[in-house]
Amino acid sequence: MSAAWLAVDWGSTNVRLWALDRDGEVMARRALSRGSDRLTPADYEPVLLTLAGKLLPEAGRVPAVLCGMAGARQGWREAPYRAVPCNPAGGETVSVPTRDPRLDVRIVPGLCRSEPPDVMRGEETQIAGLLALEPVVAGSACLPGTHAKWARVSGGQVVGIATALIGELFALLSSRSVLRHSLGEGWDEAAFAEGVSRSLGAPEALVAALFEPRARSLIDGLSGDAARAFLSGLLIGAELTAMRRFWEEGQVTIIGQTALAGRYETALAAQGVAARRVEVEAVTLAGLRAHHARLWGDGT
Amino acid sequence: MSAAWLAVDWGSTNVRLWALDRDGEVMARRALSRGSDRLTPADYEPVLLTLAGKLLPEAGRVPAVLCGMAGARQGWREAPYRAVPCNPAGGETVSVPTRDPRLDVRIVPGLCRSEPPDVMRGEETQIAGLLALEPVVAGSACLPGTHAKWARVSGGQVVGIATALIGELFALLSSRSVLRHSLGEGWDEAAFAEGVSRSLGAPEALVAALFEPRARSLIDGLSGDAARAFLSGLLIGAELTAMRRFWEEGQVTIIGQTALAGRYETALAAQGVAARRVEVEAVTLAGLRAHHARLWGDGT
Repeated sequence: MSAAWLAVDWGSTNVRLWALDRDGEVMARRALSRGSDRLTPADYEPVLLTLAGKLLPEAGRVPAVLCGMAGARQGWREAPYRAVPCNPAGGETVSVPTRDPRLDVRIVPGLCRSEPPDVMRGEETQIAGLLALEPVVAGSACLPGTHAKWARVSGGQVVGIATALIGELFALLSSRSVLRHSLGEGWDEAAFAEGVSRSLGAPEALVAALFEPRARSLIDGLSGDAARAFLSGLLIGAELTAMRRFWEEGQVTIIGQTALAGRYETALAAQGVAARRVEVEAVTLAGLRAHHARLWGDGT
Repeated sequence: MSAAWLAVDWGSTNVRLWALDRDGEVMARRALSRGSDRLTPADYEPVLLTLAGKLLPEAGRVPAVLCGMAGARQGWREAPYRAVPCNPAGGETVSVPTRDPRLDVRIVPGLCRSEPPDVMRGEETQIAGLLALEPVVAGSACLPGTHAKWARVSGGQVVGIATALIGELFALLSSRSVLRHSLGEGWDEAAFAEGVSRSLGAPEALVAALFEPRARSLIDGLSGDAARAFLSGLLIGAELTAMRRFWEEGQVTIIGQTALAGRYETALAAQGVAARRVEVEAVTLAGLRAHHARLWGDGT
Protein backbone atom coordinates (compact mmCIF):
# COMPACT_ATOMS: atom_id res chain seq x y z
CA MET A 1 0.00 0.00 0.00
CA SER A 2 1.34 3.45 -0.77
CA ALA A 3 1.37 6.35 1.67
CA ALA A 4 -1.13 9.23 1.68
CA TRP A 5 1.65 11.59 2.72
CA LEU A 6 5.17 11.63 4.17
CA ALA A 7 6.34 13.37 7.34
CA VAL A 8 10.10 14.05 7.43
CA ASP A 9 12.40 15.38 10.16
CA TRP A 10 15.72 16.24 8.49
CA GLY A 11 18.37 16.87 11.13
CA SER A 12 22.08 17.64 10.84
CA THR A 13 23.15 14.03 11.33
CA ASN A 14 20.06 11.91 10.65
CA VAL A 15 16.86 11.99 8.62
CA ARG A 16 13.64 10.32 9.84
CA LEU A 17 10.57 9.60 7.75
CA TRP A 18 7.07 8.51 8.72
CA ALA A 19 4.60 7.31 6.09
CA LEU A 20 1.00 8.17 6.95
CA ASP A 21 -2.09 6.44 5.55
CA ARG A 22 -5.39 8.10 4.58
CA ASP A 23 -6.54 7.98 8.21
CA GLY A 24 -3.38 9.74 9.33
CA GLU A 25 -2.01 6.62 11.01
CA VAL A 26 1.68 5.75 10.81
CA MET A 27 2.10 2.85 8.39
CA ALA A 28 5.91 2.84 8.27
CA ARG A 29 8.99 4.47 9.84
CA ARG A 30 12.36 4.89 8.14
CA ALA A 31 15.65 6.51 9.15
CA LEU A 32 19.07 7.08 7.56
CA SER A 33 22.28 8.69 8.76
CA ARG A 34 22.11 11.12 5.85
CA GLY A 35 21.77 14.36 7.78
CA SER A 36 22.13 17.74 6.11
CA ASP A 37 25.72 18.17 7.36
CA ARG A 38 26.92 15.83 4.63
CA LEU A 39 24.53 16.71 1.79
CA THR A 40 24.52 19.12 -1.12
CA PRO A 41 21.16 20.39 -2.45
CA ALA A 42 21.23 17.80 -5.25
CA ASP A 43 21.51 14.95 -2.71
CA TYR A 44 18.19 15.50 -0.95
CA GLU A 45 15.78 14.13 -3.56
CA PRO A 46 17.67 10.83 -4.06
CA VAL A 47 17.91 10.34 -0.27
CA LEU A 48 14.18 11.05 0.11
CA LEU A 49 13.35 8.58 -2.69
CA THR A 50 15.56 5.94 -1.04
CA LEU A 51 13.82 6.49 2.27
CA ALA A 52 10.31 6.42 0.81
CA GLY A 53 10.97 3.50 -1.56
CA LYS A 54 7.81 1.51 -2.23
CA LEU A 55 5.77 3.74 0.04
CA LEU A 56 5.37 6.06 -2.97
CA PRO A 57 2.55 5.26 -5.40
CA GLU A 58 3.34 4.35 -9.02
CA ALA A 59 1.35 7.38 -10.16
CA GLY A 60 -0.13 10.37 -8.39
CA ARG A 61 1.40 13.02 -6.16
CA VAL A 62 2.19 12.59 -2.47
CA PRO A 63 2.80 15.49 -0.07
CA ALA A 64 6.08 15.37 1.85
CA VAL A 65 6.20 17.81 4.76
CA LEU A 66 9.78 18.45 5.95
CA CYS A 67 11.11 20.19 9.02
CA GLY A 68 14.67 20.74 10.17
CA MET A 69 17.95 21.50 8.46
CA ALA A 70 16.66 20.73 4.96
CA GLY A 71 15.33 24.31 5.18
CA ALA A 72 18.66 25.87 6.19
CA ARG A 73 20.59 28.19 3.89
CA GLN A 74 23.01 25.35 3.13
CA GLY A 75 20.20 22.78 3.04
CA TRP A 76 17.89 21.69 0.22
CA ARG A 77 16.16 25.03 -0.12
CA GLU A 78 16.05 27.88 2.36
CA ALA A 79 12.83 28.30 4.32
CA PRO A 80 13.27 31.74 5.91
CA TYR A 81 12.97 32.09 9.69
CA ARG A 82 9.78 33.56 11.13
CA ALA A 83 10.10 36.07 13.94
CA VAL A 84 8.60 35.26 17.34
CA PRO A 85 6.04 35.79 18.77
CA CYS A 86 4.11 33.55 16.38
CA ASN A 87 2.16 30.31 16.16
CA PRO A 88 4.81 27.64 15.55
CA ALA A 89 2.43 25.61 13.38
CA GLY A 90 1.86 28.54 10.98
CA GLY A 91 3.88 30.42 8.39
CA GLU A 92 4.61 29.93 4.73
CA THR A 93 6.11 26.63 3.77
CA VAL A 94 8.58 26.55 0.88
CA SER A 95 7.87 24.32 -2.13
CA VAL A 96 10.82 22.49 -3.64
CA PRO A 97 10.62 21.36 -7.30
CA THR A 98 11.58 17.71 -7.76
CA ARG A 99 12.52 15.60 -10.78
CA ASP A 100 10.23 12.81 -9.62
CA PRO A 101 6.65 14.03 -10.28
CA ARG A 102 5.25 11.95 -7.41
CA LEU A 103 6.75 14.21 -4.73
CA ASP A 104 5.15 17.46 -3.51
CA VAL A 105 7.83 18.68 -1.10
CA ARG A 106 7.12 21.49 1.40
CA ILE A 107 9.64 22.69 3.97
CA VAL A 108 8.39 24.41 7.10
CA PRO A 109 10.15 27.57 8.34
CA GLY A 110 12.26 27.89 11.47
CA LEU A 111 11.90 30.60 14.12
CA CYS A 112 14.08 33.56 14.96
CA ARG A 113 14.32 36.30 17.52
CA SER A 114 16.21 39.53 17.09
CA GLU A 115 17.05 40.79 20.59
CA PRO A 116 19.06 38.94 21.68
CA PRO A 117 19.53 37.18 18.33
CA ASP A 118 18.62 33.49 18.26
CA VAL A 119 17.30 30.88 15.85
CA MET A 120 15.79 27.41 15.82
CA ARG A 121 15.04 25.02 12.98
CA GLY A 122 13.25 21.73 13.59
CA GLU A 123 12.51 22.33 17.27
CA GLU A 124 9.65 24.72 16.34
CA THR A 125 7.82 21.71 14.84
CA GLN A 126 8.22 19.76 18.08
CA ILE A 127 6.80 22.72 19.98
CA ALA A 128 3.93 22.99 17.46
CA GLY A 129 3.24 19.31 18.12
CA LEU A 130 3.36 19.81 21.87
CA LEU A 131 0.77 22.60 21.54
CA ALA A 132 -1.39 20.44 19.27
CA LEU A 133 -1.34 17.49 21.69
CA GLU A 134 -1.72 19.38 24.94
CA PRO A 135 -2.40 23.11 24.61
CA VAL A 136 -0.31 24.89 27.23
CA VAL A 137 -1.63 28.08 28.73
CA ALA A 138 1.71 29.47 29.87
CA GLY A 139 4.95 27.59 30.26
CA SER A 140 8.18 26.57 28.60
CA ALA A 141 9.55 23.76 26.50
CA CYS A 142 13.13 22.55 27.03
CA LEU A 143 14.71 20.55 24.19
CA PRO A 144 18.02 19.04 25.34
CA GLY A 145 20.59 18.13 22.70
CA THR A 146 23.74 19.21 20.90
CA HIS A 147 22.30 22.72 20.88
CA ALA A 148 19.80 22.81 23.70
CA LYS A 149 16.78 24.99 22.88
CA TRP A 150 14.30 26.64 25.21
CA ALA A 151 10.99 28.19 24.17
CA ARG A 152 8.46 30.23 26.12
CA VAL A 153 4.88 29.51 25.11
CA SER A 154 1.85 31.65 25.84
CA GLY A 155 -1.64 31.74 24.28
CA GLY A 156 -0.71 29.20 21.61
CA GLN A 157 2.29 31.24 20.48
CA VAL A 158 6.03 30.94 20.94
CA VAL A 159 6.97 34.22 22.61
CA GLY A 160 10.67 33.64 23.31
CA ILE A 161 13.47 31.29 22.26
CA ALA A 162 17.05 30.72 23.42
CA THR A 163 19.90 28.34 22.66
CA ALA A 164 22.74 26.93 24.76
CA LEU A 165 25.64 25.07 23.17
CA ILE A 166 25.74 22.73 26.16
CA GLY A 167 25.65 19.36 24.40
CA GLU A 168 28.38 20.40 21.99
CA LEU A 169 30.49 21.90 24.80
CA PHE A 170 30.23 18.69 26.84
CA ALA A 171 31.19 16.57 23.83
CA LEU A 172 34.19 18.77 22.95
CA LEU A 173 35.44 19.15 26.53
CA SER A 174 35.02 15.48 27.40
CA SER A 175 36.61 14.09 24.26
CA ARG A 176 39.10 16.72 23.07
CA SER A 177 40.20 18.97 25.93
CA VAL A 178 42.69 18.25 28.74
CA LEU A 179 39.70 17.09 30.82
CA ARG A 180 39.51 13.90 28.76
CA HIS A 181 42.43 12.47 30.77
CA SER A 182 40.34 12.67 33.94
CA LEU A 183 36.89 11.55 32.73
CA GLY A 184 35.46 8.04 32.91
CA GLU A 185 32.50 6.52 31.11
CA GLY A 186 30.25 6.06 34.13
CA TRP A 187 28.12 8.31 36.29
CA ASP A 188 27.88 9.66 39.83
CA GLU A 189 24.60 11.31 40.88
CA ALA A 190 26.13 13.16 43.85
CA ALA A 191 28.88 14.69 41.69
CA PHE A 192 26.28 15.73 39.09
CA ALA A 193 24.19 17.44 41.77
CA GLU A 194 27.30 19.19 43.12
CA GLY A 195 28.14 20.51 39.63
CA VAL A 196 24.59 21.80 39.08
CA SER A 197 24.48 23.62 42.38
CA ARG A 198 27.99 25.04 41.95
CA SER A 199 27.04 26.66 38.63
CA LEU A 200 23.72 27.97 39.93
CA GLY A 201 25.37 29.28 43.09
CA ALA A 202 28.38 30.93 41.43
CA PRO A 203 27.67 31.48 37.73
CA GLU A 204 30.52 33.98 37.45
CA ALA A 205 33.07 31.25 38.29
CA LEU A 206 32.10 28.86 35.49
CA VAL A 207 35.21 29.01 33.32
CA ALA A 208 37.44 28.48 36.37
CA ALA A 209 35.25 25.63 37.68
CA LEU A 210 35.57 23.84 34.33
CA PHE A 211 39.19 23.02 35.19
CA GLU A 212 38.23 21.47 38.52
CA PRO A 213 37.48 17.94 37.26
CA ARG A 214 41.12 17.83 36.13
CA ALA A 215 42.61 19.45 39.23
CA ARG A 216 40.59 17.27 41.61
CA SER A 217 41.54 14.11 39.77
CA LEU A 218 45.23 15.10 40.03
CA ILE A 219 45.34 16.14 43.67
CA ASP A 220 42.25 14.60 45.32
CA GLY A 221 41.97 11.35 43.33
CA LEU A 222 38.46 12.25 42.06
CA SER A 223 37.09 9.23 40.18
CA GLY A 224 36.56 9.35 36.42
CA ASP A 225 32.83 8.76 36.83
CA ALA A 226 32.51 11.58 39.33
CA ALA A 227 34.60 13.90 37.13
CA ARG A 228 32.33 13.20 34.16
CA ALA A 229 29.14 13.75 36.13
CA PHE A 230 30.53 16.90 37.80
CA LEU A 231 31.40 18.40 34.39
CA SER A 232 27.93 17.58 33.08
CA GLY A 233 26.41 19.14 36.19
CA LEU A 234 28.51 22.32 35.81
CA LEU A 235 27.33 22.74 32.21
CA ILE A 236 23.64 21.94 32.78
CA GLY A 237 23.74 24.17 35.86
CA ALA A 238 25.23 26.97 33.73
CA GLU A 239 22.42 26.43 31.23
CA LEU A 240 19.74 26.60 33.94
CA THR A 241 21.36 29.81 35.18
CA ALA A 242 21.22 31.34 31.69
CA MET A 243 17.65 30.08 31.11
CA ARG A 244 16.19 30.97 34.49
CA ARG A 245 13.43 33.11 32.94
CA PHE A 246 12.14 30.02 31.14
CA TRP A 247 11.70 27.78 34.19
CA GLU A 248 11.03 30.09 37.11
CA GLU A 249 7.32 30.35 36.24
CA GLY A 250 4.77 28.04 34.64
CA GLN A 251 4.88 24.41 33.57
CA VAL A 252 8.17 23.15 32.10
CA THR A 253 7.98 20.37 29.51
CA ILE A 254 11.19 18.53 28.61
CA ILE A 255 11.01 17.07 25.11
CA GLY A 256 13.04 13.87 25.08
CA GLN A 257 13.29 10.49 26.76
CA THR A 258 17.09 10.24 26.59
CA ALA A 259 19.44 9.94 29.56
CA LEU A 260 20.39 13.56 28.87
CA ALA A 261 16.75 14.65 29.18
CA GLY A 262 16.63 12.79 32.49
CA ARG A 263 19.55 14.86 33.76
CA TYR A 264 17.67 18.06 32.98
CA GLU A 265 14.69 16.68 34.91
CA THR A 266 16.96 15.91 37.89
CA ALA A 267 18.64 19.32 37.75
CA LEU A 268 15.29 21.13 37.57
CA ALA A 269 13.87 19.00 40.41
CA ALA A 270 16.77 20.20 42.59
CA GLN A 271 15.49 23.75 41.97
CA GLY A 272 11.99 22.72 43.03
CA VAL A 273 10.66 22.51 39.46
CA ALA A 274 8.64 19.38 38.61
CA ALA A 275 9.10 19.20 34.85
CA ARG A 276 7.14 16.72 32.75
CA ARG A 277 8.65 14.67 29.92
CA VAL A 278 7.22 13.92 26.47
CA GLU A 279 8.57 11.85 23.59
CA VAL A 280 10.34 13.52 20.67
CA GLU A 281 8.70 11.30 18.06
CA ALA A 282 5.16 12.00 19.30
CA VAL A 283 5.54 15.77 19.23
CA THR A 284 7.54 15.90 15.98
CA LEU A 285 4.88 13.90 14.20
CA ALA A 286 2.07 15.95 15.74
CA GLY A 287 3.77 19.12 14.53
CA LEU A 288 4.18 17.84 10.97
CA ARG A 289 0.53 16.66 11.09
CA ALA A 290 -0.55 20.17 12.06
CA HIS A 291 1.21 21.60 8.99
CA HIS A 292 -0.26 18.88 6.76
CA ALA A 293 -3.77 19.54 8.03
CA ARG A 294 -3.33 23.27 7.42
CA LEU A 295 -2.06 22.78 3.84
CA TRP A 296 -4.21 19.89 2.64
CA GLY A 297 -7.01 19.57 5.18
CA ASP A 298 -6.95 16.95 7.89
CA GLY A 299 -7.65 14.04 5.56
CA THR A 300 -11.08 13.30 6.96
CA MET B 1 82.58 25.52 23.95
CA SER B 2 80.40 23.40 26.15
CA ALA B 3 77.68 24.72 28.44
CA ALA B 4 78.04 25.19 32.20
CA TRP B 5 74.41 24.18 32.68
CA LEU B 6 71.18 23.71 30.74
CA ALA B 7 67.83 25.39 31.42
CA VAL B 8 64.84 23.53 29.96
CA ASP B 9 61.13 24.39 29.72
CA TRP B 10 59.31 21.18 28.76
CA GLY B 11 55.74 22.00 27.74
CA SER B 12 52.92 19.80 26.42
CA THR B 13 53.66 20.58 22.79
CA ASN B 14 57.19 22.02 22.67
CA VAL B 15 60.46 21.81 24.55
CA ARG B 16 62.85 24.78 24.79
CA LEU B 17 66.47 24.66 25.95
CA TRP B 18 68.90 27.40 26.86
CA ALA B 19 72.60 26.66 27.28
CA LEU B 20 74.25 28.88 29.89
CA ASP B 21 77.98 29.61 30.16
CA ARG B 22 80.03 29.95 33.35
CA ASP B 23 78.94 33.59 33.66
CA GLY B 24 75.29 32.61 33.43
CA GLU B 25 74.94 34.13 29.95
CA VAL B 26 72.87 32.42 27.27
CA MET B 27 75.26 30.88 24.73
CA ALA B 28 72.65 28.98 22.70
CA ARG B 29 68.90 28.44 22.36
CA ARG B 30 67.25 25.28 21.00
CA ALA B 31 63.64 24.17 20.56
CA LEU B 32 61.84 21.07 19.29
CA SER B 33 58.17 20.17 18.87
CA ARG B 34 58.69 17.17 21.18
CA GLY B 35 56.34 18.19 23.97
CA SER B 36 55.37 15.77 26.74
CA ASP B 37 51.99 15.00 25.11
CA ARG B 38 53.74 12.70 22.64
CA LEU B 39 56.51 11.24 24.82
CA THR B 40 56.90 8.18 27.03
CA PRO B 41 59.36 8.35 29.98
CA ALA B 42 62.03 6.61 27.88
CA ASP B 43 61.85 9.31 25.20
CA TYR B 44 62.97 12.25 27.34
CA GLU B 45 66.69 11.52 27.61
CA PRO B 46 67.24 11.03 23.84
CA VAL B 47 65.27 14.23 23.11
CA LEU B 48 67.32 16.15 25.67
CA LEU B 49 70.58 14.78 24.17
CA THR B 50 69.42 15.78 20.68
CA LEU B 51 68.59 19.28 21.90
CA ALA B 52 71.85 19.71 23.78
CA GLY B 53 74.06 18.11 21.11
CA LYS B 54 77.57 19.52 21.13
CA LEU B 55 76.74 21.88 23.98
CA LEU B 56 77.51 18.96 26.32
CA PRO B 57 81.17 18.44 27.29
CA GLU B 58 82.97 15.23 26.33
CA ALA B 59 83.50 14.50 29.99
CA GLY B 60 82.17 15.98 33.21
CA ARG B 61 78.65 16.44 34.51
CA VAL B 62 76.34 19.30 33.50
CA PRO B 63 73.26 20.32 35.50
CA ALA B 64 69.99 20.40 33.55
CA VAL B 65 67.17 22.20 35.38
CA LEU B 66 63.76 21.33 33.94
CA CYS B 67 60.35 22.87 34.54
CA GLY B 68 56.96 22.01 33.04
CA MET B 69 55.24 18.81 32.02
CA ALA B 70 58.39 16.66 32.24
CA GLY B 71 57.48 16.60 35.94
CA ALA B 72 53.88 15.49 35.44
CA ARG B 73 52.66 12.06 36.52
CA GLN B 74 52.72 10.98 32.86
CA GLY B 75 55.98 12.87 32.19
CA TRP B 76 59.60 11.86 32.67
CA ARG B 77 59.41 11.54 36.43
CA GLU B 78 56.79 13.00 38.75
CA ALA B 79 57.79 16.09 40.72
CA PRO B 80 55.00 16.38 43.31
CA TYR B 81 53.02 19.63 43.53
CA ARG B 82 53.78 22.00 46.40
CA ALA B 83 50.84 23.60 48.19
CA VAL B 84 50.47 27.39 48.11
CA PRO B 85 51.23 29.67 49.85
CA CYS B 86 54.91 29.13 49.12
CA ASN B 87 57.96 30.67 47.45
CA PRO B 88 57.70 29.56 43.80
CA ALA B 89 61.49 29.35 43.50
CA GLY B 90 61.75 26.90 46.40
CA GLY B 91 60.83 23.28 47.08
CA GLU B 92 62.51 19.95 46.48
CA THR B 93 63.58 19.23 42.94
CA VAL B 94 63.44 15.64 41.70
CA SER B 95 66.60 13.99 40.37
CA VAL B 96 66.22 11.77 37.33
CA PRO B 97 68.83 9.06 36.69
CA THR B 98 70.16 9.10 33.10
CA ARG B 99 72.13 6.62 31.00
CA ASP B 100 74.43 9.38 29.80
CA PRO B 101 76.71 10.23 32.78
CA ARG B 102 77.15 13.83 31.59
CA LEU B 103 73.59 14.82 32.58
CA ASP B 104 72.51 15.81 36.10
CA VAL B 105 68.75 16.26 35.58
CA ARG B 106 66.60 18.01 38.18
CA ILE B 107 62.89 18.68 37.71
CA VAL B 108 61.27 21.52 39.66
CA PRO B 109 57.87 20.94 41.31
CA GLY B 110 54.55 22.49 40.27
CA LEU B 111 52.11 24.24 42.60
CA CYS B 112 48.72 23.17 43.89
CA ARG B 113 45.89 24.56 45.93
CA SER B 114 43.25 22.49 47.67
CA GLU B 115 40.19 24.73 48.07
CA PRO B 116 39.08 25.16 45.40
CA PRO B 117 41.37 22.53 43.84
CA ASP B 118 43.81 23.81 41.22
CA VAL B 119 47.28 23.03 39.87
CA MET B 120 50.01 24.59 37.72
CA ARG B 121 53.19 23.14 36.29
CA GLY B 122 55.69 25.32 34.44
CA GLU B 123 53.94 28.62 35.13
CA GLU B 124 55.30 28.60 38.72
CA THR B 125 58.80 28.97 37.24
CA GLN B 126 57.73 31.99 35.20
CA ILE B 127 56.28 33.54 38.36
CA ALA B 128 59.50 32.72 40.25
CA GLY B 129 61.39 34.51 37.48
CA LEU B 130 59.07 37.50 37.62
CA LEU B 131 59.72 37.77 41.37
CA ALA B 132 63.47 37.41 40.83
CA LEU B 133 63.54 40.15 38.18
CA GLU B 134 61.17 42.62 39.80
CA PRO B 135 60.03 41.75 43.31
CA VAL B 136 56.32 42.53 43.57
CA VAL B 137 54.93 43.62 46.90
CA ALA B 138 51.32 42.67 46.19
CA GLY B 139 49.76 41.91 42.85
CA SER B 140 48.88 39.22 40.36
CA ALA B 141 50.37 37.47 37.38
CA CYS B 142 48.19 36.50 34.42
CA LEU B 143 49.55 33.85 32.05
CA PRO B 144 47.33 33.60 28.93
CA GLY B 145 47.40 30.37 26.96
CA THR B 146 45.64 27.08 26.30
CA HIS B 147 44.99 26.89 30.01
CA ALA B 148 45.18 30.45 31.28
CA LYS B 149 46.69 30.66 34.75
CA TRP B 150 46.41 33.41 37.36
CA ALA B 151 48.50 33.72 40.49
CA ARG B 152 48.26 36.07 43.44
CA VAL B 153 51.64 37.12 44.79
CA SER B 154 52.34 38.65 48.20
CA GLY B 155 55.56 38.99 50.22
CA GLY B 156 57.57 36.93 47.74
CA GLN B 157 55.09 34.04 47.92
CA VAL B 158 52.39 32.71 45.64
CA VAL B 159 49.28 32.86 47.80
CA GLY B 160 46.60 31.83 45.30
CA ILE B 161 46.30 30.18 41.88
CA ALA B 162 43.48 29.57 39.42
CA THR B 163 43.03 28.15 35.94
CA ALA B 164 40.58 28.93 33.12
CA LEU B 165 40.30 26.63 30.09
CA ILE B 166 39.76 29.69 27.88
CA GLY B 167 42.38 29.07 25.19
CA GLU B 168 41.27 25.49 24.76
CA LEU B 169 37.57 26.48 24.73
CA PHE B 170 38.19 29.09 22.04
CA ALA B 171 40.15 26.63 19.90
CA LEU B 172 37.49 23.91 20.21
CA LEU B 173 34.52 26.23 19.66
CA SER B 174 36.09 28.07 16.74
CA SER B 175 37.32 25.00 14.89
CA ARG B 176 34.97 22.15 15.87
CA SER B 177 31.59 23.51 16.99
CA VAL B 178 28.71 24.85 14.89
CA LEU B 179 30.23 28.32 15.39
CA ARG B 180 33.01 27.44 12.93
CA HIS B 181 30.59 28.09 10.05
CA SER B 182 30.26 31.72 11.15
CA LEU B 183 33.84 32.59 12.12
CA GLY B 184 36.40 34.31 9.91
CA GLU B 185 40.16 34.58 10.30
CA GLY B 186 40.34 38.31 10.94
CA TRP B 187 39.60 40.59 13.86
CA ASP B 188 37.23 43.38 14.91
CA GLU B 189 38.15 45.41 18.00
CA ALA B 190 34.63 46.74 18.57
CA ALA B 191 33.12 43.25 18.52
CA PHE B 192 35.82 42.04 20.93
CA ALA B 193 35.05 44.89 23.33
CA GLU B 194 31.32 44.10 23.08
CA GLY B 195 31.95 40.44 23.95
CA VAL B 196 34.11 41.36 26.95
CA SER B 197 31.55 43.75 28.36
CA ARG B 198 28.65 41.35 27.71
CA SER B 199 30.29 38.63 29.78
CA LEU B 200 31.30 40.98 32.57
CA GLY B 201 27.83 42.54 32.62
CA ALA B 202 25.84 39.29 32.52
CA PRO B 203 28.05 36.36 33.56
CA GLU B 204 25.01 34.16 34.19
CA ALA B 205 24.09 34.32 30.47
CA LEU B 206 27.42 33.02 29.12
CA VAL B 207 26.33 29.66 27.71
CA ALA B 208 23.40 31.29 25.90
CA ALA B 209 25.59 34.14 24.58
CA LEU B 210 28.03 31.60 23.09
CA PHE B 211 25.43 30.80 20.40
CA GLU B 212 25.06 34.46 19.42
CA PRO B 213 27.95 34.60 16.92
CA ARG B 214 26.07 31.93 14.95
CA ALA B 215 22.58 33.45 15.33
CA ARG B 216 23.79 36.95 14.44
CA SER B 217 25.62 35.72 11.37
CA LEU B 218 22.45 33.94 10.21
CA ILE B 219 19.92 36.70 10.83
CA ASP B 220 21.93 39.94 11.06
CA GLY B 221 24.74 39.18 8.61
CA LEU B 222 27.42 39.58 11.29
CA SER B 223 30.84 39.38 9.60
CA GLY B 224 33.14 36.43 10.22
CA ASP B 225 35.81 38.69 11.67
CA ALA B 226 33.35 40.27 14.09
CA ALA B 227 31.95 36.87 15.05
CA ARG B 228 35.46 35.59 15.86
CA ALA B 229 36.37 38.65 17.91
CA PHE B 230 33.00 38.64 19.72
CA LEU B 231 33.48 34.99 20.73
CA SER B 232 37.01 35.72 21.96
CA GLY B 233 35.64 38.70 23.91
CA LEU B 234 32.87 36.61 25.49
CA LEU B 235 35.41 34.03 26.69
CA ILE B 236 38.05 36.46 27.94
CA GLY B 237 35.27 38.47 29.61
CA ALA B 238 34.04 35.28 31.29
CA GLU B 239 37.58 34.64 32.48
CA LEU B 240 37.94 38.16 33.89
CA THR B 241 34.62 37.65 35.68
CA ALA B 242 35.85 34.42 37.26
CA MET B 243 39.24 35.93 38.12
CA ARG B 244 38.03 39.27 39.48
CA ARG B 245 39.77 38.73 42.84
CA PHE B 246 43.10 38.60 41.01
CA TRP B 247 42.84 41.92 39.18
CA GLU B 248 40.66 44.16 41.32
CA GLU B 249 43.58 45.13 43.57
CA GLY B 250 47.31 45.57 43.06
CA GLN B 251 49.55 45.48 40.01
CA VAL B 252 48.64 43.00 37.26
CA THR B 253 51.49 41.58 35.18
CA ILE B 254 50.62 39.74 31.97
CA ILE B 255 53.30 37.24 31.04
CA GLY B 256 53.43 37.03 27.27
CA GLN B 257 53.98 39.12 24.15
CA THR B 258 51.52 37.24 21.93
CA ALA B 259 48.44 38.70 20.25
CA LEU B 260 46.41 36.78 22.85
CA ALA B 261 48.26 38.50 25.70
CA GLY B 262 47.48 41.81 23.99
CA ARG B 263 43.77 40.96 24.13
CA TYR B 264 43.97 40.44 27.87
CA GLU B 265 45.69 43.81 28.18
CA THR B 266 42.88 45.43 26.14
CA ALA B 267 40.14 43.69 28.13
CA LEU B 268 41.71 44.70 31.45
CA ALA B 269 42.20 48.28 30.25
CA ALA B 270 38.45 48.45 29.58
CA GLN B 271 37.96 47.68 33.31
CA GLY B 272 40.33 50.48 34.25
CA VAL B 273 43.27 48.16 34.96
CA ALA B 274 46.63 49.17 33.47
CA ALA B 275 48.42 45.83 33.29
CA ARG B 276 52.07 45.61 32.35
CA ARG B 277 53.52 43.00 30.01
CA VAL B 278 56.70 40.96 30.32
CA GLU B 279 58.30 38.39 28.03
CA VAL B 280 57.84 34.69 28.65
CA GLU B 281 61.44 33.83 27.80
CA ALA B 282 62.91 36.36 30.20
CA VAL B 283 60.89 35.21 33.20
CA THR B 284 61.18 31.48 32.44
CA LEU B 285 64.94 31.74 32.26
CA ALA B 286 65.09 33.89 35.39
CA GLY B 287 63.02 31.28 37.24
CA LEU B 288 65.28 28.41 36.15
CA ARG B 289 68.32 30.52 37.08
CA ALA B 290 66.89 30.99 40.57
CA HIS B 291 66.61 27.22 40.99
CA HIS B 292 70.13 26.69 39.61
CA ALA B 293 71.58 29.27 41.99
CA ARG B 294 69.81 27.64 44.93
CA LEU B 295 71.07 24.14 44.02
CA TRP B 296 74.60 24.87 42.82
CA GLY B 297 75.32 28.40 43.92
CA ASP B 298 75.14 31.31 41.55
CA GLY B 299 78.25 30.33 39.58
CA THR B 300 80.32 33.28 40.71
